[in-house]
Amino acid sequence: MRIDLNCDMGESFGVYTLGLDEAALPYVTSVNVACGFHASDPGNMLKTVRQAKQYKVAIGAHPSFPDLVGFGRRAMAASAEEIYADVIYQIGALAAICKAEGLVLQHVKAHGALYNMAEKDGIVAAAIAEAIKSVDPSLYMVCSCGSAMVKAAQSAGVRYVEEAFADRAYTREGTLVPRKQAGAVIHDVREVAARVLQLITTGRVGTIDGAEVALAAQTICVHGDTPGAVEMIKEIRTQLDREGVDVVPFGK
Amino acid sequence: MRIDLNCDMGESFGVYTLGLDEAALPYVTSVNVACGFHASDPGNMLKTVRQAKQYKVAIGAHPSFPDLVGFGRRAMAASAEEIYADVIYQIGALAAICKAEGLVLQHVKAHGALYNMAEKDGIVAAAIAEAIKSVDPSLYMVCSCGSAMVKAAQSAGVRYVEEAFADRAYTREGTLVPRKQAGAVIHDVREVAARVLQLITTGRVGTIDGAEVALAAQTICVHGDTPGAVEMIKEIRTQLDREGVDVVPFGK
Amino acid sequence: MRIDLNCDMGESFGVYTLGLDEAALPYVTSVNVACGFHASDPGNMLKTVRQAKQYKVAIGAHPSFPDLVGFGRRAMAASAEEIYADVIYQIGALAAICKAEGLVLQHVKAHGALYNMAEKDGIVAAAIAEAIKSVDPSLYMVCSCGSAMVKAAQSAGVRYVEEAFADRAYTREGTLVPRKQAGAVIHDVREVAARVLQLITTGRVGTIDGAEVALAAQTICVHGDTPGAVEMIKEIRTQLDREGVDVVPFGK
Amino acid sequence: MRIDLNCDMGESFGVYTLGLDEAALPYVTSVNVACGFHASDPGNMLKTVRQAKQYKVAIGAHPSFPDLVGFGRRAMAASAEEIYADVIYQIGALAAICKAEGLVLQHVKAHGALYNMAEKDGIVAAAIAEAIKSVDPSLYMVCSCGSAMVKAAQSAGVRYVEEAFADRAYTREGTLVPRKQAGAVIHDVREVAARVLQLITTGRVGTIDGAEVALAAQTICVHGDTPGAVEMIKEIRTQLDREGVDVVPFGK
Repeated sequence: MRIDLNCDMGESFGVYTLGLDEAALPYVTSVNVACGFHASDPGNMLKTVRQAKQYKVAIGAHPSFPDLVGFGRRAMAASAEEIYADVIYQIGALAAICKAEGLVLQHVKAHGALYNMAEKDGIVAAAIAEAIKSVDPSLYMVCSCGSAMVKAAQSAGVRYVEEAFADRAYTREGTLVPRKQAGAVIHDVREVAARVLQLITTGRVGTIDGAEVALAAQTICVHGDTPGAVEMIKEIRTQLDREGVDVVPFGK
Repeated sequence: MRIDLNCDMGESFGVYTLGLDEAALPYVTSVNVACGFHASDPGNMLKTVRQAKQYKVAIGAHPSFPDLVGFGRRAMAASAEEIYADVIYQIGALAAICKAEGLVLQHVKAHGALYNMAEKDGIVAAAIAEAIKSVDPSLYMVCSCGSAMVKAAQSAGVRYVEEAFADRAYTREGTLVPRKQAGAVIHDVREVAARVLQLITTGRVGTIDGAEVALAAQTICVHGDTPGAVEMIKEIRTQLDREGVDVVPFGK
Repeated sequence: MRIDLNCDMGESFGVYTLGLDEAALPYVTSVNVACGFHASDPGNMLKTVRQAKQYKVAIGAHPSFPDLVGFGRRAMAASAEEIYADVIYQIGALAAICKAEGLVLQHVKAHGALYNMAEKDGIVAAAIAEAIKSVDPSLYMVCSCGSAMVKAAQSAGVRYVEEAFADRAYTREGTLVPRKQAGAVIHDVREVAARVLQLITTGRVGTIDGAEVALAAQTICVHGDTPGAVEMIKEIRTQLDREGVDVVPFGK
Repeated sequence: MRIDLNCDMGESFGVYTLGLDEAALPYVTSVNVACGFHASDPGNMLKTVRQAKQYKVAIGAHPSFPDLVGFGRRAMAASAEEIYADVIYQIGALAAICKAEGLVLQHVKAHGALYNMAEKDGIVAAAIAEAIKSVDPSLYMVCSCGSAMVKAAQSAGVRYVEEAFADRAYTREGTLVPRKQAGAVIHDVREVAARVLQLITTGRVGTIDGAEVALAAQTICVHGDTPGAVEMIKEIRTQLDREGVDVVPFGK
């Protein structure tokens, strides 16, 4: 039994700080580092990569639509060619910063609206997969379980892992319950930890309507933006360690 | 006898076009490609790299201060650490786009105000040299002849070439005559071509006050932003070819 | 019989130039000036306002989504509150530049994707109308004929004019034929001029399928981005002058 | 005896928060609101203006060099014409947001590197003064005591006030002790409050070398970016109220 815990990181920008990176780092195994399009800047990226190095976590690029003011959360009607070029650019920028610190990238995970679009839109997902393939075929693409991203990675011949969300409810179809719906986000720390453990040990997770669904997740997405979120990661990690689950970067 | 002709390129941005890239490409051997900080964007960078590939010219990164509206021409009081990170970021972004097209970078040449500051300010020059070294020690740093950039490249142990400017007058000390001074820019096409030829064959060039100065240039900077500039490159190239000078990328 | 001819203007940015502003200015009566979100910057805005002053044309703000690299042509999932604030900001910035030149704004016309969304989406249109109302209730909102923008202006109690597009084909419902469809854009200069004249004199225009539709337009949108487009404006203006149509800013 | 307390405010950007605006607002009388060039965005500006309205403080524009990533703290070699246009743009944007809330601007105070340059460089100071004059001659320019800004305001015929810094040490010449020098910043809350009181009641303040210097300040600059800073404002305000000093916006 093994699993990876991935967490967005390095989302500070200029003088602005965001996220409890130092607090979350001891408990996660992979980090998705902002590349300057929705958050961060070269200086903050360098700082983040140095922190990741110190904690020996694997590093991934977290490319986004170019929308600093909207934090990459607003869908944009960008063309496939624009997304392809934007993703290559962002991967390269972060890869160089990693290289400057003697590190290599493990993966690429789209951010925010770009991620949400890629879950459903095969053209967007393919643009991301092709970008990854053209830059470095050894990179993993982090895909939402059973989404269009998985198909795009397969079609492009790109290595990929599927991820499940620790604190989100699922439908019987294995899709995320939309955030607007009651019960979509699970706030109870112990319940979340138990669900993660169930998923890893059984490959299944309880659905919002009381059934179960199979999820083939090699990584679990956790959050480090609030003290409560960090508490949740810590609890998840403690449970996993206690149960003897091997918590390691998926690329290892 | 051999020389390289380098030219800024890929300075279009979004819907905006700048420079006569297609017209200049047949005559130059190395291009300095904008990386999104003073000009260009991922889509235009990809387009530029594809053009450079077609014409088989060597590609270099052309990093700048982050100043799109000022085209990187305004000096900024950025710290050495900021410049170091900004340069790594820009090199990486372009390197990835090259990699996507099966190419590798040959060099790095600072743009505009960053270049001008690095000519005189050892701290700025060192930040650039260290950035290059940390990203890829096989990259050349393009340095203004006899400037602080040369010393910085030497101190950092970075490969470098020195460049002379085809259309600029020099002082007896081997420095550029400031643009504001009369005679600083030479507009006559034949005169410029003759000066370039003199420099390559003798290692010396006439100074503004009628003397001569030695310049150890491995590359000549030419411009492709106006029809007249392209005409000048064409004339220089024609003269060099006629005299049997080997015009090739310096990295070959 | 009177009409206004409106034209996008001031879309240069930094060192980049776009549009044939000086060539188009003699023939139009109102200009839509970019405000720095899809194009332009304070310096270019000031230059544009000075040109408009010289040619005595009326000035309007041309607010956009914040997307310089995409020239505001990419739809963005911005909230109504974000659009409201963005539009106020842009109107204010241009109004101040006008004030510095002793001028006042006549109107506001959304740009690109923001315009296209406002044609159909009442929430987007209302955000624009409310922004105009809150900044200056004497401003006109330029609305696509019969669109959601008209209803939004009416609901908000904002003065408005409806505009028709000189070179675009219309359906029987009075909507624009989508650009992708054959015949959507009319390229023949004389035909365009004839259609404009027909519209002004009869209030009706021929549809793509050979019928006619009524359009209540107080302003005609023309383009100044290519020599051909300027030729078209000139022809339209010549025809209108010949027929004794009073070509004046709608705010007069 | 009367004085104004001015404080930078509205420096959040997108999802990023900065400053303890709500905590500081009860104690200050004028706020300098970021206009999107070094910090803030239209949405945050609107939020800030609404808060300022609630607390009935006077509002000023806080224009900056265009440098979000550097928070406007990096000197830039912008031309006078660029500064002039940038300042007009930013004043206008904020003025429109104020107008949308039924408010008018009281003043303009340059931010960061622009302020620092304007203290010494008459050309920069004049560009700011001319911008203010051209937009709205009823606006006050906030000037560092006895600086080039004062002369520029006088030459342009712009209304101005001089400001002193609550927590900064002064030389016998009435200039700020540079931050790098020991004792430049005074951290003791009671000492700062006492100095402010001394300044208001006597028009003089103790210098770093134990002498006194006259400062003609109509407003005192305080900070609201840390809990300690807010504590300091509170103490200053309490002392001023206790001593019967009339703490009101200078424009009243």
